[in-house]
Amino acid sequence: MKAGFIGLGNMGSAIALHLIKAGHQVSVWNRSPGKDDALLAAGATRAASPADAAEADVVLSMLADDAAVQAVVFGEHGTLSSSAKAVHVSLSTISIELADHLAETHRQAGRDYVSAPVFGRPAAAQAAKLFIAAAGKPAALSLCAPLFDAISQRVFTIGETPSMANVVKLSGNFMIMAAVEAMAEAMALCEKSGVEKSTLFEVLTNTLFNAPVYKTYGEILVQERYRPAGFAAPLGLKDMTLVGSAAQRVGVPMPVLGVVRDHLIETIACEGPDIDWSGVGLTVSKHAGLK
Amino acid sequence: MKAGFIGLGNMGSAIALHLIKAGHQVSVWNRSPGKDDALLAAGATRAASPADAAEADVVLSMLADDAAVQAVVFGEHGTLSSSAKAVHVSLSTISIELADHLAETHRQAGRDYVSAPVFGRPAAAQAAKLFIAAAGKPAALSLCAPLFDAISQRVFTIGETPSMANVVKLSGNFMIMAAVEAMAEAMALCEKSGVEKSTLFEVLTNTLFNAPVYKTYGEILVQERYRPAGFAAPLGLKDMTLVGSAAQRVGVPMPVLGVVRDHLIETIACEGPDIDWSGVGLTVSKHAGLK
Amino acid sequence: MKAGFIGLGNMGSAIALHLIKAGHQVSVWNRSPGKDDALLAAGATRAASPADAAEADVVLSMLADDAAVQAVVFGEHGTLSSSAKAVHVSLSTISIELADHLAETHRQAGRDYVSAPVFGRPAAAQAAKLFIAAAGKPAALSLCAPLFDAISQRVFTIGETPSMANVVKLSGNFMIMAAVEAMAEAMALCEKSGVEKSTLFEVLTNTLFNAPVYKTYGEILVQERYRPAGFAAPLGLKDMTLVGSAAQRVGVPMPVLGVVRDHLIETIACEGPDIDWSGVGLTVSKHAGLK
Amino acid sequence: MKAGFIGLGNMGSAIALHLIKAGHQVSVWNRSPGKDDALLAAGATRAASPADAAEADVVLSMLADDAAVQAVVFGEHGTLSSSAKAVHVSLSTISIELADHLAETHRQAGRDYVSAPVFGRPAAAQAAKLFIAAAGKPAALSLCAPLFDAISQRVFTIGETPSMANVVKLSGNFMIMAAVEAMAEAMALCEKSGVEKSTLFEVLTNTLFNAPVYKTYGEILVQERYRPAGFAAPLGLKDMTLVGSAAQRVGVPMPVLGVVRDHLIETIACEGPDIDWSGVGLTVSKHAGLK
Repeated sequence: MKAGFIGLGNMGSAIALHLIKAGHQVSVWNRSPGKDDALLAAGATRAASPADAAEADVVLSMLADDAAVQAVVFGEHGTLSSSAKAVHVSLSTISIELADHLAETHRQAGRDYVSAPVFGRPAAAQAAKLFIAAAGKPAALSLCAPLFDAISQRVFTIGETPSMANVVKLSGNFMIMAAVEAMAEAMALCEKSGVEKSTLFEVLTNTLFNAPVYKTYGEILVQERYRPAGFAAPLGLKDMTLVGSAAQRVGVPMPVLGVVRDHLIETIACEGPDIDWSGVGLTVSKHAGLK
Repeated sequence: MKAGFIGLGNMGSAIALHLIKAGHQVSVWNRSPGKDDALLAAGATRAASPADAAEADVVLSMLADDAAVQAVVFGEHGTLSSSAKAVHVSLSTISIELADHLAETHRQAGRDYVSAPVFGRPAAAQAAKLFIAAAGKPAALSLCAPLFDAISQRVFTIGETPSMANVVKLSGNFMIMAAVEAMAEAMALCEKSGVEKSTLFEVLTNTLFNAPVYKTYGEILVQERYRPAGFAAPLGLKDMTLVGSAAQRVGVPMPVLGVVRDHLIETIACEGPDIDWSGVGLTVSKHAGLK
Repeated sequence: MKAGFIGLGNMGSAIALHLIKAGHQVSVWNRSPGKDDALLAAGATRAASPADAAEADVVLSMLADDAAVQAVVFGEHGTLSSSAKAVHVSLSTISIELADHLAETHRQAGRDYVSAPVFGRPAAAQAAKLFIAAAGKPAALSLCAPLFDAISQRVFTIGETPSMANVVKLSGNFMIMAAVEAMAEAMALCEKSGVEKSTLFEVLTNTLFNAPVYKTYGEILVQERYRPAGFAAPLGLKDMTLVGSAAQRVGVPMPVLGVVRDHLIETIACEGPDIDWSGVGLTVSKHAGLK
Repeated sequence: MKAGFIGLGNMGSAIALHLIKAGHQVSVWNRSPGKDDALLAAGATRAASPADAAEADVVLSMLADDAAVQAVVFGEHGTLSSSAKAVHVSLSTISIELADHLAETHRQAGRDYVSAPVFGRPAAAQAAKLFIAAAGKPAALSLCAPLFDAISQRVFTIGETPSMANVVKLSGNFMIMAAVEAMAEAMALCEKSGVEKSTLFEVLTNTLFNAPVYKTYGEILVQERYRPAGFAAPLGLKDMTLVGSAAQRVGVPMPVLGVVRDHLIETIACEGPDIDWSGVGLTVSKHAGLK
């Protein structure tokens, strides 16, 4: 089908390439130039603007934050300027408020909006092994199905209100941080008690905790490999702030969120913004007098 | 080999039975009578006292708490009264202080002590599928190896100082509680945002969080099946208190521990002591105004 | 001098009246009508718009939140439309971002801006016994001095950057909530230990804690007099959210803030929005199984 | 009257001296010798043992912790060996469990026990300006009244169960730490926002927070004068641990206690044990990247 793709960072480029490979006609756009060479070589066309990219059946966006999404949708040459009725699919982690606002605005313009945030790092995107949490009208989700199939290992349908998918995505990111924090606290306890962190890691990941979240982040904690950042602490803090806003909006106290948010703030304040969000492990170690 | 077994609760009985089945000569003892019928039928002998049970190569104890362990070791007819030089293996979750004290006392009496706390619920004990974190002198661990093989799916050797195994066990229990708490907070956020808890559960346990800790406890949280208790909240609180003492002793702040400890206190205060330790999920729900 | 006054709620009306009594020419404006009768009777004139009120030496605003302040400054007939060069004084609790934005906008328009948030409830405003934390250019503060004298018992000069006064005000509100929370936790401990809350209150407020914050709020906690709200929980939560944003902006973890924020969220979720912000005391009691 | 006094540290010596000056016959005892010279010169007699000191109408103890109190009461030559029926008054901060245990043991021995923990630092003891929270049988409290009058500015009668006074004392110490923590968080926010800590201090202590707790500790925080310790962090942590045990015993979650306990653990781990308990202020500063 005809698809527009907006946002060609590490994640976006890898995803767009799989859409092309799957045989779709993809027109791509990125705010800063020079990101689309490989995609053009693979068969994409270059869109002149977000509106141009939206002259399609579906236009997908993979952008850094709320502001970037707003710019490509509501900006002067934003997708809303398009004459096409493309379904807009937002793949990135955005706020509940923005998701609701997009749904409403697109509805008024006679278009469908789908929130389809993805779980997975760039390597998963390159392997077309992302997980997608998708929410929107059934017809819109059906239309998107072939695109989602081309880029992910599995799609979870969350519901009809698009922002529900964002709630699930934010919940997942919170739980990653919570797992990292708990593991870091336990590792500090072990280390100061004479037990190697790697020993705890081996026990955990071979018993009740044998899941990617503990394997991936446990390895980082054991090796103290917080740089270069896979997902930088300020982005993690941004997401935890979105979780906090979502929770406050519907009235849910989340004390563990408070802990990880404070540790992210401290990690950035003390270690600089270029550290991985798992750098909370370094902060937890310092609190125990280990560094 | 000749083994004594002390403490015939749900866990202990299941473990002792596997030792018998593996061909060891097992003499059993329990404080309250009438717990050993099935074991005697299976070939065990009845010990007259802990000291009597300790007339063996190895004497294992599986007891509720520090006080119970102290009673069977240091009591009038405790294992220390035995003339044998049995290695004492403590399978239960006890404090670091007591593990250190046992190691020292047994050392002075010319015996070896092994801390070998197990991970797993009664069902795992019945299936001989426990995990064991074991620490002690290599010779003592070698001696115990056939016994451990008979009752577990895997043994992790933690180190030579017995209490190190207890640190690992306490760390694991803390991390279970932390995972339950985080999942409960995320589920409350989802529920109040219109997303079914079961939907979040499905996404989590099929992606980064596909580990037993999330599957087992996530199911309990989704079904709100907090009674009957698999592991009662007061026992969970006891363990978290042991974690707290261990952390304070070596100087490790653990803010997530503070959160789960407070939630266990509240759960017991408001719901009664017969609730499962995952009942913190109910407390988290109530805080969000959900019940 | 010639003063405009915008925002005639409980606080604003009481303050404006003291300005009139002190002999200043005061023109008043309120979004919803019918709030100015007493002030007109006392000698005020009615302004047709915020811009009209700003045809003065100084224009003061006492408004509920950031949005209200933005509306009267940047709205169609906002103070910025005034041809006068009135110093704008914001007396209410607003965000650091907005204070910085106001300072910059007024500067570009050739005006001065003073942040002068007040400490005190309506009774203190009526008695001209407010405390003021004021920040701005020295000349602007000097100009405002007679006005501040008319409405307060003391003015604290915080610095030249207006938003610094807002930081002090937010800090103060945070510390009130922290004191209430701590006292509520201690009272729950006493109550469940058989000691009357009033006994603890008497000891505290006659020893190290004999300050208004403990006397005022301690009395509310002892009597459980959370309604009607003197300062409603949603306003308290709004302020704690501003504290959180300010802290995150400059990189300061504030774990006690996390606690009180969660308790305010829960209090509103479980008790409704009409409860006083000291209603966190009720939430703390419930957690202890007391209600 | 005839009074024994046990424990001649900074606090105890100052208190005992006032009893002598008030005309009472005081016999003094201290575990380590050489502490009683000034008191003997002032008219005290030297007791040969705790039991000897207890040959009196009232025997008061002012000791570091539970273990020290247990030693002087239950030790070989402890007060319980005395033939006299002296009322035992414990002036120090001890656990609820020990207070209950002392009450029961003394009762069985036909004696009265009074818990009378004091609020105040050594300077207050020297000035006879302590505050006393006293609990015990009315007759026993009456008997002690002249002694209390000689050493304090005010006595608060808490109830008939001695440990109730300890609950009040522990609550007070918790609230001191909570006030220090909150003030430290607010000062870090101010400092990183460009506002001097001393400015916040001036505003607070001249408005709603004009109580000794903020004046005394605020000055320490502003000057960062954490050494020498007036009350060392490990003693503070010991007290917070007693609060935690008391709270867990009766079922009260205290999240702010969790925060200050963690900060005390970290302060000791990172700064050493010779720092004042208000050194949590240093820890809070470091978290904000200020040191």
